[in-house]
Amino acid sequence: MVNNRFMFEKPLGMRDTLPFLYEHKQRVRHAIANTVTSWGYQGLETPMVEYLDTVGGASAIEGTRLFKLLDRQGHSLVLRPDLTVPIARVAASQLKEQGYPLRLHYDGPVFRAQQTEGGKPAQFEQIGVEYIGETSDYADAEVIALQIEALLASGLSDFHITIGHIGYVKGLLFEIFGGHRSTEAEQFLRYLYEKDYVGFRKAVKEVNIKDEDRQRLRQLLSLRGKHHVFAAAEEMAENGACHKAIQELKQLYQLLQLYDVHSCVSFDLTVISHMHYYTGILFEGYTPKVGASLCNGGRYDQLLPSFQSDASATGFAIHLDRLMEALGEQEPLHDRVLILYDDQTFSEALCKAQELRRNGEKVVLQWIDGISDSSYSQHFKRVVDVCRGGVVYE
Amino acid sequence: MVNNRFMFEKPLGMRDTLPFLYEHKQRVRHAIANTVTSWGYQGLETPMVEYLDTVGGASAIEGTRLFKLLDRQGHSLVLRPDLTVPIARVAASQLKEQGYPLRLHYDGPVFRAQQTEGGKPAQFEQIGVEYIGETSDYADAEVIALQIEALLASGLSDFHITIGHIGYVKGLLFEIFGGHRSTEAEQFLRYLYEKDYVGFRKAVKEVNIKDEDRQRLRQLLSLRGKHHVFAAAEEMAENGACHKAIQELKQLYQLLQLYDVHSCVSFDLTVISHMHYYTGILFEGYTPKVGASLCNGGRYDQLLPSFQSDASATGFAIHLDRLMEALGEQEPLHDRVLILYDDQTFSEALCKAQELRRNGEKVVLQWIDGISDSSYSQHFKRVVDVCRGGVVYE
Repeated sequence: MVNNRFMFEKPLGMRDTLPFLYEHKQRVRHAIANTVTSWGYQGLETPMVEYLDTVGGASAIEGTRLFKLLDRQGHSLVLRPDLTVPIARVAASQLKEQGYPLRLHYDGPVFRAQQTEGGKPAQFEQIGVEYIGETSDYADAEVIALQIEALLASGLSDFHITIGHIGYVKGLLFEIFGGHRSTEAEQFLRYLYEKDYVGFRKAVKEVNIKDEDRQRLRQLLSLRGKHHVFAAAEEMAENGACHKAIQELKQLYQLLQLYDVHSCVSFDLTVISHMHYYTGILFEGYTPKVGASLCNGGRYDQLLPSFQSDASATGFAIHLDRLMEALGEQEPLHDRVLILYDDQTFSEALCKAQELRRNGEKVVLQWIDGISDSSYSQHFKRVVDVCRGGVVYE
Repeated sequence: MVNNRFMFEKPLGMRDTLPFLYEHKQRVRHAIANTVTSWGYQGLETPMVEYLDTVGGASAIEGTRLFKLLDRQGHSLVLRPDLTVPIARVAASQLKEQGYPLRLHYDGPVFRAQQTEGGKPAQFEQIGVEYIGETSDYADAEVIALQIEALLASGLSDFHITIGHIGYVKGLLFEIFGGHRSTEAEQFLRYLYEKDYVGFRKAVKEVNIKDEDRQRLRQLLSLRGKHHVFAAAEEMAENGACHKAIQELKQLYQLLQLYDVHSCVSFDLTVISHMHYYTGILFEGYTPKVGASLCNGGRYDQLLPSFQSDASATGFAIHLDRLMEALGEQEPLHDRVLILYDDQTFSEALCKAQELRRNGEKVVLQWIDGISDSSYSQHFKRVVDVCRGGVVYE
């Protein structure tokens, strides 16, 4: 017997997907899956539950956001907080023999515990790819071009990809603070990560550095826009890391022009997406209808080494629930036919249903006395009443 | 950094699905989804995590098999151990307005903790339907016929559905022991549930009942086979519940003949599948290649009332991993084309790839210097080497 207090309740941040939304989600999932498989990406699945030491530890998600549990042997487990780490585990072990590069795609739920009733999901679905074992700009360009093609295939047109490079930001902070792991450098990184540009400007004013460097930090915030930012960025930094980053971005932009997706992208050298995860080119996707990033990705070269593999990787993840929000309200499909029968006409109704199903129709075959509600037929595009000699109501 | 001890390990009973199996699983999922949607069933999804009080309590799964966790507010949560209970929750609340009957389908993982290294999965995928809000034999027949059509669509031909009726077994035990909740009746039910016919026969010998009843209990074990069992079953029991059960089975068999699936079914009045869950017709599916039931289902009239709805329901669930095992080893698909380019030929290779993708091919576009392993091309059906003027290797 179900406890009354919670009878219809779900845990904080957990949601149901009802039939109407489900059909639209399925359409979007298939569209994206067809795109990524046509680019030769291969699907895989990993379990919902992993060891905390393996996946929880390597994940980019803070410990307080993890759903932890114990197995019956007393090991600490975690509901997977992302899919990149489990896939790195598989790529570095069971798939290693296939030879690199590997092109993999996935579609599944990830879990992040919510602390408050903020309407944020604790379980949400990520669809993405991982391109593992190649450091070339070709790989970065492919992943960004594929993300754009996947979004277009889903039916979205009004979106924008913002590209940055963690190497440039860290290079500049290293140059200014003499070591990118210094407390100050870390603090400025965090302002960028949190997109707290007010805090950044305030800290620039207060920090004890040369006026020239103060100026450079302020200029960093303006390094955003089309590819003209490259010249200003190169001029502003002297160190090799920054120049290498800009070279990579230039090369990337040329390739995106060949892919003919360059009109969808811009650059922003303050984008860092995560404090520790990415190691090179990275990107975030936005659409005006959704207040958070729709998708993101980039190059991570340190994750596979933590699984004893020297492979570099890049990939993207699309936040499916936000994509559905961006695609907006859809009309209910009402694409089913209802065939009604009584005890005398079942056989005839069955033949009719089988015939329509063979022709690709979705057909509910329904005993007329089993319907509880007179408005039942309004959920169907057509009603065939076999009890009344096959009268059709459209 | 990943702890070495567990580096590539997954929790007990957790598995990865690698690309090769993934593609075959997807094919089977789509085949079943196409079948159930063509019968007008509508998909839905519920979260992986539910309140223990709501879903854990109403579930048919023992408490020791549940994965339990606490949320940050201190509530007890559970990884869903089945999908029927969460769907009953949704059907009795958010979908109630649609009017009954509801025809719903689902496809997703469920979780059952494993205590030992027995190779049993702790997470496995169930694909199934729920037909909610109608008590007619038409509904039972539809669900069984649909299950058979779904299995055939998956590519399986060598399978068999065994149908029983909990009302008959309980009616007979009630008649013999004067109350089906008596300790003896419960004990005999448990032998049947565990398919422990040796234990059953031993208990028949030892229990203190009339010789005539002893004989009837022994006969119960022989009530299996084609529809000729109905006559013997009717003769053996006097009470109304047993006769009502046999009437329902007869009616069901007639309908399954009209569906032309009767050759796939037989009857076994000792099948009870679960100690408390089912309340009417129930069934299990078997295939010679797998040592456990491939699918099961039946009528459950007590579940929705526990969510304050008076709807009766019937449904089936296919155990996807066992179905994949039954379908046997498949050949790797090798259905991708590999296009190789170097720094001089990317643009040309991209055009070629786009052309082939438009024609429905799966194409990997690969920088030749990015390949780590000379055997890389063996995973492809065809290689187009644009660096060498487009030479093709089949």
